Amino acid sequence: MKAAVLYKDQTHLRIEDVPIPELKPGDVRVNIKCCGVCGSDIHMTIHKQVRLRHYPTILGHEASGVVTEVGSDVKKFKKGDRVVVCSGLGCGKCRQCLKGRHNLCPEINVLGAEMNGAYAEQITIEERHLYHLPDQIPFDQGAILADAVSTPYHALKFVGKIEPGEVVAVYGCGGLGIHAVTLARALGASKVIALDVDEGALDNAGKYKADEMIDLRRVRNSGKTLQELTGGVDLMLDFSGHYSNFEDAMRAMNPGGRMVMAGIGKHPFKLTFPFMVINKQISVLGSLGCDSRAIPELIDLYTSGRLDLSTSITSHHPLEDVNQCLENLYYRKGNPIRFIITPNGKIGAQ
Amino acid sequence: MKAAVLYKDQTHLRIEDVPIPELKPGDVRVNIKCCGVCGSDIHMTIHKQVRLRHYPTILGHEASGVVTEVGSDVKKFKKGDRVVVCSGLGCGKCRQCLKGRHNLCPEINVLGAEMNGAYAEQITIEERHLYHLPDQIPFDQGAILADAVSTPYHALKFVGKIEPGEVVAVYGCGGLGIHAVTLARALGASKVIALDVDEGALDNAGKYKADEMIDLRRVRNSGKTLQELTGGVDLMLDFSGHYSNFEDAMRAMNPGGRMVMAGIGKHPFKLTFPFMVINKQISVLGSLGCDSRAIPELIDLYTSGRLDLSTSITSHHPLEDVNQCLENLYYRKGNPIRFIITPNGKIGAQ
Amino acid sequence: MKAAVLYKDQTHLRIEDVPIPELKPGDVRVNIKCCGVCGSDIHMTIHKQVRLRHYPTILGHEASGVVTEVGSDVKKFKKGDRVVVCSGLGCGKCRQCLKGRHNLCPEINVLGAEMNGAYAEQITIEERHLYHLPDQIPFDQGAILADAVSTPYHALKFVGKIEPGEVVAVYGCGGLGIHAVTLARALGASKVIALDVDEGALDNAGKYKADEMIDLRRVRNSGKTLQELTGGVDLMLDFSGHYSNFEDAMRAMNPGGRMVMAGIGKHPFKLTFPFMVINKQISVLGSLGCDSRAIPELIDLYTSGRLDLSTSITSHHPLEDVNQCLENLYYRKGNPIRFIITPNGKIGAQ
Amino acid sequence: MKAAVLYKDQTHLRIEDVPIPELKPGDVRVNIKCCGVCGSDIHMTIHKQVRLRHYPTILGHEASGVVTEVGSDVKKFKKGDRVVVCSGLGCGKCRQCLKGRHNLCPEINVLGAEMNGAYAEQITIEERHLYHLPDQIPFDQGAILADAVSTPYHALKFVGKIEPGEVVAVYGCGGLGIHAVTLARALGASKVIALDVDEGALDNAGKYKADEMIDLRRVRNSGKTLQELTGGVDLMLDFSGHYSNFEDAMRAMNPGGRMVMAGIGKHPFKLTFPFMVINKQISVLGSLGCDSRAIPELIDLYTSGRLDLSTSITSHHPLEDVNQCLENLYYRKGNPIRFIITPNGKIGAQ
Repeated sequence: MKAAVLYKDQTHLRIEDVPIPELKPGDVRVNIKCCGVCGSDIHMTIHKQVRLRHYPTILGHEASGVVTEVGSDVKKFKKGDRVVVCSGLGCGKCRQCLKGRHNLCPEINVLGAEMNGAYAEQITIEERHLYHLPDQIPFDQGAILADAVSTPYHALKFVGKIEPGEVVAVYGCGGLGIHAVTLARALGASKVIALDVDEGALDNAGKYKADEMIDLRRVRNSGKTLQELTGGVDLMLDFSGHYSNFEDAMRAMNPGGRMVMAGIGKHPFKLTFPFMVINKQISVLGSLGCDSRAIPELIDLYTSGRLDLSTSITSHHPLEDVNQCLENLYYRKGNPIRFIITPNGKIGAQ
Repeated sequence: MKAAVLYKDQTHLRIEDVPIPELKPGDVRVNIKCCGVCGSDIHMTIHKQVRLRHYPTILGHEASGVVTEVGSDVKKFKKGDRVVVCSGLGCGKCRQCLKGRHNLCPEINVLGAEMNGAYAEQITIEERHLYHLPDQIPFDQGAILADAVSTPYHALKFVGKIEPGEVVAVYGCGGLGIHAVTLARALGASKVIALDVDEGALDNAGKYKADEMIDLRRVRNSGKTLQELTGGVDLMLDFSGHYSNFEDAMRAMNPGGRMVMAGIGKHPFKLTFPFMVINKQISVLGSLGCDSRAIPELIDLYTSGRLDLSTSITSHHPLEDVNQCLENLYYRKGNPIRFIITPNGKIGAQ
Repeated sequence: MKAAVLYKDQTHLRIEDVPIPELKPGDVRVNIKCCGVCGSDIHMTIHKQVRLRHYPTILGHEASGVVTEVGSDVKKFKKGDRVVVCSGLGCGKCRQCLKGRHNLCPEINVLGAEMNGAYAEQITIEERHLYHLPDQIPFDQGAILADAVSTPYHALKFVGKIEPGEVVAVYGCGGLGIHAVTLARALGASKVIALDVDEGALDNAGKYKADEMIDLRRVRNSGKTLQELTGGVDLMLDFSGHYSNFEDAMRAMNPGGRMVMAGIGKHPFKLTFPFMVINKQISVLGSLGCDSRAIPELIDLYTSGRLDLSTSITSHHPLEDVNQCLENLYYRKGNPIRFIITPNGKIGAQ
Repeated sequence: MKAAVLYKDQTHLRIEDVPIPELKPGDVRVNIKCCGVCGSDIHMTIHKQVRLRHYPTILGHEASGVVTEVGSDVKKFKKGDRVVVCSGLGCGKCRQCLKGRHNLCPEINVLGAEMNGAYAEQITIEERHLYHLPDQIPFDQGAILADAVSTPYHALKFVGKIEPGEVVAVYGCGGLGIHAVTLARALGASKVIALDVDEGALDNAGKYKADEMIDLRRVRNSGKTLQELTGGVDLMLDFSGHYSNFEDAMRAMNPGGRMVMAGIGKHPFKLTFPFMVINKQISVLGSLGCDSRAIPELIDLYTSGRLDLSTSITSHHPLEDVNQCLENLYYRKGNPIRFIITPNGKIGAQ
């Protein structure tokens, strides 16, 4: 089958023919319909910041498709089923996995990183990593449930514990943060403020009905601006990884407020006045991917009409365009939310 | 009545005669039996780090006593009742107070700081700030429920959300941290590790049955030592205010671990590798004083035999000795947990 | 001032002149703009099922108005402020009140029941029982926040702990249940099913966008119908008080489901097969009024556009019509949600 | 291998030679050291109330042992490891299992009921159903962690949500309820009241330090007695299955109290005055077995010295005595908590 493979020391994926992996008794084979192009792929390719455990590896971790074959022990799926593929694969046996927190599994494998991914015509994967995708969710929007939507959902709901009526600020409105904006509204936020350094990203936030957009290049102290605009923030989420924003933002937090760290950055995190954390009883909370609750709940929200992802799909591309998509994403060319790779050609009817 | 009063620009309290305040319809007058000498009094006196809103002010915020007179609207207390006095007095009307979180009230007054305190023969205070003290709790141990015990209880239970079986590390084992050690055990911790730079404090932790004591002057990286001793920490609490410990300690935290900031310090808080917060889904949580749940629950724990505070009372002193007590506490002379001021002389029978 | 007063053994209110009560230092005097006519008033009048502690008493417990005078100790309100009046007045000093759960206060007084209410030109009440009503909420919709909206909000959010994406069934769609329907949608339910024996009530549920309406007179086993329509219910709320519905409804519950009892009825509650509670790990939860969190959160939801109450106000009436309104409500004449009494005449500009 | 097998329509187990099951790649073979004799075995044998899905079946669901062989995919266990076997085996793939709530899995299999159990020399089972048993927990006490201790732990902690300082009442002090008594103390209850109709059971409760024992045959209204003894109960748990006790007990509940149904009985559940549930905001909560959190947390509690199970083991017996043990348990002969079957002879050193 055709796949986009990363070799050691390469910054671009090579499109080549690779053997189809064996199907074990508990496995399911999925014909990939759509795979989202995610910013974290850039870290492994153009940036070379993230080193993989083995090379060569097929990248791609935001996938949907159709089941083509099932192993003899598989019970919940059959040929023809529409599915979305979970991107983080816990061991299923450790204390964290047994509690449903596979994102904290010490031996977690991420699709398209620690194991071969979905920039490929097919994928072969254990049954427990798949979710049924209802007919009313198109394959492209279904694919991005696996990361771009589920990661901010986890950050908002399970880590940040959003309450209806709260004021929410989102720093960094790329592919993940932008969904925090729309999800915060769906989960009852009374006001959502989007902050970014990129005009296109703020435009996207406007389309997703952020109540206010703040261009971080034009304000000196975003906390002061937030305070003026909102009177106080209950929940702040960072998807930018620029933790230098935290001390400013903290000034705008209400007592008991929560600040969620979800964006990966290399800058240190520093609080000159740590007493503010105590004095307002602030919680600073790390959020990692999502656990087993996110995707099923998102599917329910979507099918009941509470979640609209139609704006999130920027364009569809054949597998051969994956390097171009990564570059366009890197340079934010075309103001993308999600480029979608369709390794088997047009999505078609099913 | 006699009281210990702080004047502006003074580092010592002046013992003098002050007028007894008026009793309003909702007020209760309490004859002070015991008032604990707390490290935060040092910040207002010897250190002069904390500036008060008005001077002169009577200090003292950890008090128990006996009701001598009640206003006409008072319903829950009568002459002769034994009481403990809440140290943080919320407005009772704001959104935070109405939810029972008076510690987050934007207009909170702390006894012996924003208003006259309990280094005095009497105090006159609104009924809702008092709790009935059962006969089996001596006045000295009852007094310290108001801060030295309730503040770490709040940090452990309501902020840190301790679970039975967890491994707990306490940095800073002075008057507050030492009670985090004993409370962590009472709340079911499987292992409690005490860390301090002072040998006497570690001795106290040993008396309160910490499983291990680590002298922070003798280890290079306390996180590494914690990791070796415990295999991983679930809940870390800091009462030292030295936030430079946090990055080390974070290495020993288990995934999903919580780190509670309760100690007040002036050093900045810095994480060179903020990604660790995300990768382990760590929560860094500010904890401020205690809310309305702590004291009643502590009284229940005490009367049912789960909480033993007998080691916490170092010695009793007349009001005139308050400056000496503050100095001894400052220099940790006599390895004190709590010195107790008895403004009305010996505690006696009642 | 004019007021509608209930005398002992009377089934109708007497409109008469009563003295204006004294204003204590902590009190606020409010000119009543609107007071909702609630089903529980019927229990005290037409039904005579509920006996009051003292007679005569002014009824009315769902009120909004404008501050006309404040006592010397009042800090948060001033003349001219728009306010909504909390209907259940806890003592403010007991363990439950201090935790913000005034609905569980053993000495709670309900406005217009244990104390004089708001079917009157004025009311005089302690400051802590008032909330600021923003300009964009009309007085009539603001009044019903005090019970008709806050009671189901409490049942849904704090007792039933609704999660986004859940399937919700509401038994009994009168003045309270109907707001459970609209609130369940605002809080993210994926499907809301309304059940009642009255066609008008089901019509109202349709206006509030229930996904399905079930006429309980036309189905034999509502649980079976629910199961067919939804595939399983996560959260069931009863505002009808007919607990004979519970065993049927339980068959439709999903594992881990919650069933909330909020409607007051005199029929016994019986489960022939209690094992079902265990086998599905069902929670059966009593819900009483609301605590201090509901009204502020509802005001936030309203002002941010998530809560629309425009359909809830049936019509406005002068104080003299209160008995007629009670009768019309009793016979469901005009398919009312809320009749509004305006004791000071038309609501006007402010 | 030798095993105790139940045939259709039989009330006694037949000891016979059965083939050793095949070892699949994900399986572990365990040499059974200890298997507890549980009251639910009586329902399948002497009582014949519970019908199994297939016959013949090997019973026994509370087991510990030593690993003798592992399949090729097994990662966490090796030959010689001491283990405890989880008694309820969820599918591992459904929404409930993925959240760690395998007790609510619609396809759950219980060991020694839906599948062959541990009244046998060996058992062959999927890796994810095993937990490592530390050396300091003897095999007999380790075995009963799998049900007799974990089921009441789940009921107390995850369903009843016990808080330190609470008053707890336990109805029914057989093999499960008795551990609710000792666990309630370990989790910080201020007072634990044991209620039963059997003197021996109450004696056992006394050994486990219940604060009070109430003989239900000697009181008319246990709620009244509880009220007098405690002033109000926060958490009530029923392991007796006699739900006729609930209405009485409810009178003693504090506002906000929780009543947990864990005992399986055939009598209907009836509340003549359902309003009490609302008026006190009571929660009536079904509790089913335990989920994946219980056993690891219990192991932590045990190894840290908070949980003492030494009184729970009544005596050890060879496999041939299993029918006699069931009868003695049925007639409560010898006042048993747990009889232990040792299918491979004496437990020995390992």
